[in-house]
Amino acid sequence: MATTRVGIINVTGYVGMELARLLHQHPQVELTSVTGRSAAGQKLGKVFPHLASINLTIEPELGEVDLAFSAMPHKESATAVVPLLKRGIKVIDASADFRLKDVAEYERRYGVTHPAPELLSNAVYGLPELHRTEIAPAQLVSIPGCYPTSAILALAPVVKADLIELEVIVDSKSGTSGAGRTPTQTTHYSEVNEDVTAYALEGHRHLPEITQELNILRTGQALSATFVPHLIPMTRGILTTCYATPLPGKISDGEKGREWLRQLYEDFYKDEPFVQVAGEPPHTKHTWGSNMCLIYPTIAPDTGRLVIISCIDNLVKGAAGGGVQNMNIMLGLPEVAGLQASAVFP
Amino acid sequence: MATTRVGIINVTGYVGMELARLLHQHPQVELTSVTGRSAAGQKLGKVFPHLASINLTIEPELGEVDLAFSAMPHKESATAVVPLLKRGIKVIDASADFRLKDVAEYERRYGVTHPAPELLSNAVYGLPELHRTEIAPAQLVSIPGCYPTSAILALAPVVKADLIELEVIVDSKSGTSGAGRTPTQTTHYSEVNEDVTAYALEGHRHLPEITQELNILRTGQALSATFVPHLIPMTRGILTTCYATPLPGKISDGEKGREWLRQLYEDFYKDEPFVQVAGEPPHTKHTWGSNMCLIYPTIAPDTGRLVIISCIDNLVKGAAGGGVQNMNIMLGLPEVAGLQASAVFP
Amino acid sequence: MATTRVGIINVTGYVGMELARLLHQHPQVELTSVTGRSAAGQKLGKVFPHLASINLTIEPELGEVDLAFSAMPHKESATAVVPLLKRGIKVIDASADFRLKDVAEYERRYGVTHPAPELLSNAVYGLPELHRTEIAPAQLVSIPGCYPTSAILALAPVVKADLIELEVIVDSKSGTSGAGRTPTQTTHYSEVNEDVTAYALEGHRHLPEITQELNILRTGQALSATFVPHLIPMTRGILTTCYATPLPGKISDGEKGREWLRQLYEDFYKDEPFVQVAGEPPHTKHTWGSNMCLIYPTIAPDTGRLVIISCIDNLVKGAAGGGVQNMNIMLGLPEVAGLQASAVFP
Amino acid sequence: MATTRVGIINVTGYVGMELARLLHQHPQVELTSVTGRSAAGQKLGKVFPHLASINLTIEPELGEVDLAFSAMPHKESATAVVPLLKRGIKVIDASADFRLKDVAEYERRYGVTHPAPELLSNAVYGLPELHRTEIAPAQLVSIPGCYPTSAILALAPVVKADLIELEVIVDSKSGTSGAGRTPTQTTHYSEVNEDVTAYALEGHRHLPEITQELNILRTGQALSATFVPHLIPMTRGILTTCYATPLPGKISDGEKGREWLRQLYEDFYKDEPFVQVAGEPPHTKHTWGSNMCLIYPTIAPDTGRLVIISCIDNLVKGAAGGGVQNMNIMLGLPEVAGLQASAVFP
Repeated sequence: MATTRVGIINVTGYVGMELARLLHQHPQVELTSVTGRSAAGQKLGKVFPHLASINLTIEPELGEVDLAFSAMPHKESATAVVPLLKRGIKVIDASADFRLKDVAEYERRYGVTHPAPELLSNAVYGLPELHRTEIAPAQLVSIPGCYPTSAILALAPVVKADLIELEVIVDSKSGTSGAGRTPTQTTHYSEVNEDVTAYALEGHRHLPEITQELNILRTGQALSATFVPHLIPMTRGILTTCYATPLPGKISDGEKGREWLRQLYEDFYKDEPFVQVAGEPPHTKHTWGSNMCLIYPTIAPDTGRLVIISCIDNLVKGAAGGGVQNMNIMLGLPEVAGLQASAVFP
Repeated sequence: MATTRVGIINVTGYVGMELARLLHQHPQVELTSVTGRSAAGQKLGKVFPHLASINLTIEPELGEVDLAFSAMPHKESATAVVPLLKRGIKVIDASADFRLKDVAEYERRYGVTHPAPELLSNAVYGLPELHRTEIAPAQLVSIPGCYPTSAILALAPVVKADLIELEVIVDSKSGTSGAGRTPTQTTHYSEVNEDVTAYALEGHRHLPEITQELNILRTGQALSATFVPHLIPMTRGILTTCYATPLPGKISDGEKGREWLRQLYEDFYKDEPFVQVAGEPPHTKHTWGSNMCLIYPTIAPDTGRLVIISCIDNLVKGAAGGGVQNMNIMLGLPEVAGLQASAVFP
Repeated sequence: MATTRVGIINVTGYVGMELARLLHQHPQVELTSVTGRSAAGQKLGKVFPHLASINLTIEPELGEVDLAFSAMPHKESATAVVPLLKRGIKVIDASADFRLKDVAEYERRYGVTHPAPELLSNAVYGLPELHRTEIAPAQLVSIPGCYPTSAILALAPVVKADLIELEVIVDSKSGTSGAGRTPTQTTHYSEVNEDVTAYALEGHRHLPEITQELNILRTGQALSATFVPHLIPMTRGILTTCYATPLPGKISDGEKGREWLRQLYEDFYKDEPFVQVAGEPPHTKHTWGSNMCLIYPTIAPDTGRLVIISCIDNLVKGAAGGGVQNMNIMLGLPEVAGLQASAVFP
Repeated sequence: MATTRVGIINVTGYVGMELARLLHQHPQVELTSVTGRSAAGQKLGKVFPHLASINLTIEPELGEVDLAFSAMPHKESATAVVPLLKRGIKVIDASADFRLKDVAEYERRYGVTHPAPELLSNAVYGLPELHRTEIAPAQLVSIPGCYPTSAILALAPVVKADLIELEVIVDSKSGTSGAGRTPTQTTHYSEVNEDVTAYALEGHRHLPEITQELNILRTGQALSATFVPHLIPMTRGILTTCYATPLPGKISDGEKGREWLRQLYEDFYKDEPFVQVAGEPPHTKHTWGSNMCLIYPTIAPDTGRLVIISCIDNLVKGAAGGGVQNMNIMLGLPEVAGLQASAVFP
């Protein structure tokens, strides 16, 4: 049986580059084509020395593939995948173009006209822990944003079980690689190093993804979220601290409540290969380079407030690794194929 | 007129060391004595090359001084300052021993018997922005904890104006210097670098300080706080993100509410030399090495939740600099004396 | 055919931990036993959350294995491996105990009596690029030090070809993980961050390894080295900058000489899977987490001095990965088995 | 007596910004005018929040001043200072335009035509430790490059005393702030963090400055240098490790030679306020934010090679602080005025 041929559109950003790293070491697919505008014609290993073992030339256009990842910027990505879909190629999109079901919300948040709104109803939000059965037969899957991946996985069990009041707080701390490979003042080493700041206080684009997915898990009045992302001086990793108020009478006080909550999470994620309920407050560094999401649910001692902490590598579980996990499901491969490497620590 | 002689007990930790740096460049006091057990007998500049311009030998016992800073660990500090107070020396204590008014709370949180509970009623909580008039005549002033400094300054205006519901969330991100100079696994470079984690989820010792001080500002049912500190890969700086729910009808929606809130903060801090209401989400790096606290109050767009962000250098405004500010007030000096250096950026 | 059973003595340091990561994902051996004194009785994944997928309990004593890695400190390691060797087990030692052929030099540098000097003549210095044929049949192989790995690989081609004068300069820049997992003032985050310093100016223990191996490559008067290691604020990686004076008439001036030198390196390493002659000055980050060594030889424009730069991940090619490469050779497996993962960048 | 009015051309780069920080806290001059093209019309404290205490608006053109610093890029700087010099204003130039005496060398290294070669003979190389008497009466002083400052101060004593052979090796490790404030791929946080690399192996522009100044100190055949700069993951600081071969018979072996060498350095720098001979291998962090240069001379144990290490904060002693030191000399002020702050550690 022929190996599935896989391609990457725009391999020259961090997500594309990370897809190449993961797909090259995947035992059951073959990375056969990578594109990139500025670097077209160059050997991949010349542009990215850490990928020197991949013998591919960066092309201006995608070659013949069975499945394509798009790592283009939003809007351009939707435009790029339309012809691929028409040719029957399966597509996994790393941009924001197919994440939101509400095209008006998309257009308001991203400030652009959606190039292919007709595709939204068929696109699947590619978070396997919530949408595995829809992902399997899909032709177009959208990789969730990095912040939403961490926030949704942290909150899904308590939202699904209808345990909390209608507003949640999501305080995320992210490394800089989520901001991409293009140099800016915001990601200039001398200014990021030894600094922390909050940003996007006027409303981050990932916020509607978080509420869209949480509200799918429940009925009744819509839940809302206050989301504040922070940039911290590291390259990879997101740690998200979620705060929620338990509905009265739903969770016991003290240690008993904590154990019950923990059990709820262990049950919810018991069959998930890439979500682990941690025994201690988790460290992003324990997920570095891996597809693992660590979650630690607890209850604040003085207030009874739920505090749920999650950790991921934003470029793996929060982007490229999540994408490969989707691919495995779409191709009927073992879900963990190519994603079993442990985190690199320290 | 003779210059005031000032001493530091335990100069060999980071707070003691930072006090030495600031006091040496203070124009109106003279640093005349520094102590330290392990390094006694050595020149200060030998132990800390960056302080080579200070010509002092580390002594086992404090010499003759008019005012002493204690940078001893908790419990040991109270024991050390008792004899000084008896000799009529003014004391500024950087430990936790005189921060909490409730001795039972102190003993529960710190797991020790308080060596001098009789001093608590006279000790002043040395946050000048809230207690300036009490600090001026005091003999014993306690420097607030670093996290409480950032949290209390962030929340005081809305608490004082009785604008918020009874529970607040305080999510803090701190560099490692707050953990002190003693090496531990938690502060080992290879494990802190490229990592973020939450800690003290069972209840951090600084929590009762925060609620004690906020509740002084208001009447009625006590306000409570959920406080989660995080360790991030940098040396100096704390950024605290506070979340509070406005009481119904107190603050307008949207931009109008934001401007009103901002004006409230500007009015509250208009005469404060070391609190500045920032025009943009602040960076810890803009306070690096300085005594400034930057505060940015805003309202989350989708939920109307108040989000108030503050930044300090934990070793300056959050410890040694706050101590020097107290000293200036106690000695009748200009409050900004010795504290006017700008942050060192980048 | 039964899979080879492999064990790790002292899995709780960084080298032991990294061996576990690499051996667990190795397709042709099985990690069956790991030991550690302080953590004995605990699950490996409890002590090191990033290794949670390895289902092993840390034992006080090594179980039945066919090949053992020792990641004990020097002296203790030699003592620990003697009984294993007697039982016929193949041993790969990560300590310094079997690197130096000259026991007096060992005892002088390490300040201890060698516990098993009789083993030195049979122990093989496990740098495959120089000693592959001796490694294959050996029972006891010693993993080279991290600094020597980078320095010897950088200098071997010009030493072997007898192109340089008798003294070389080796200026190395290392991350902190080489200093191990035990916290010290020297590796305390607050003091390493935003700092660089040189150390061991009185003579680093790795120096005689460098000269021992370089002198094996040549005849005549012994070559000597000035070696200055530096600690820089990062976790993994060593970049070594070597300076050597070409013998008169051996290398052409200018671009022609540079190309000839580069060709010499490409020829020398043409069959090596883990040494790559880089097209540009290499970055340690391009080797992060991988077993690759990047080398860049050039000639300084104004002085004609040879400048040869090498990069490795000190915990992989400089320790655990180098060890696995030796194991593959000793077991007759493909040399690259289990070591093909690309570096994780950025 | 009126205070000297001082201005800064191009305050919006890191050197200009750092000049503003230092000049604002200088007790004997007044910073009265700052310029910057892109930010003209804005308050300085709006653009740089850490400088909020400086009440100045960034202007398009310099106002009336007695002395001007230019922090323009090379070539533009020379063009900008010509009219100032004609008006009799004293000028201290932070660019490379007036450092090299040999205009052909300048034009070759910088690839531009010098706009004012006629000024080179009167411009003074502003390293006070070597040129104090020429600086005092000068109208135009050039601030040395950051790398040359560290290398020349490290090597001057042994060159002046004619102790070494004709070629030296200068291996420098620099933080990223020396690369300036403009974002580039080379200074992108995600790529600099956890990385070290060498650069400018084809010949760095600072090399001829180093040899120009060292050769002024001696007679006979010109000394040459191999200079390799490295970029390491920190913001501020340069550590330079110099290697030199002692001439036969000039320096004793072993500890005796080391002590003699150290004494040579202490004598050479005994009256210098900003050079300190360190008792141990120095740390850049011990100079952070200060104007101090720490130097540690020693002799390698096995080879007898001289190893001389120096540390500076590249933005202070290596740029803005060195500039202020020159200003103090030119204005007849105490040389240490405004520069006495200790380093901020940790």
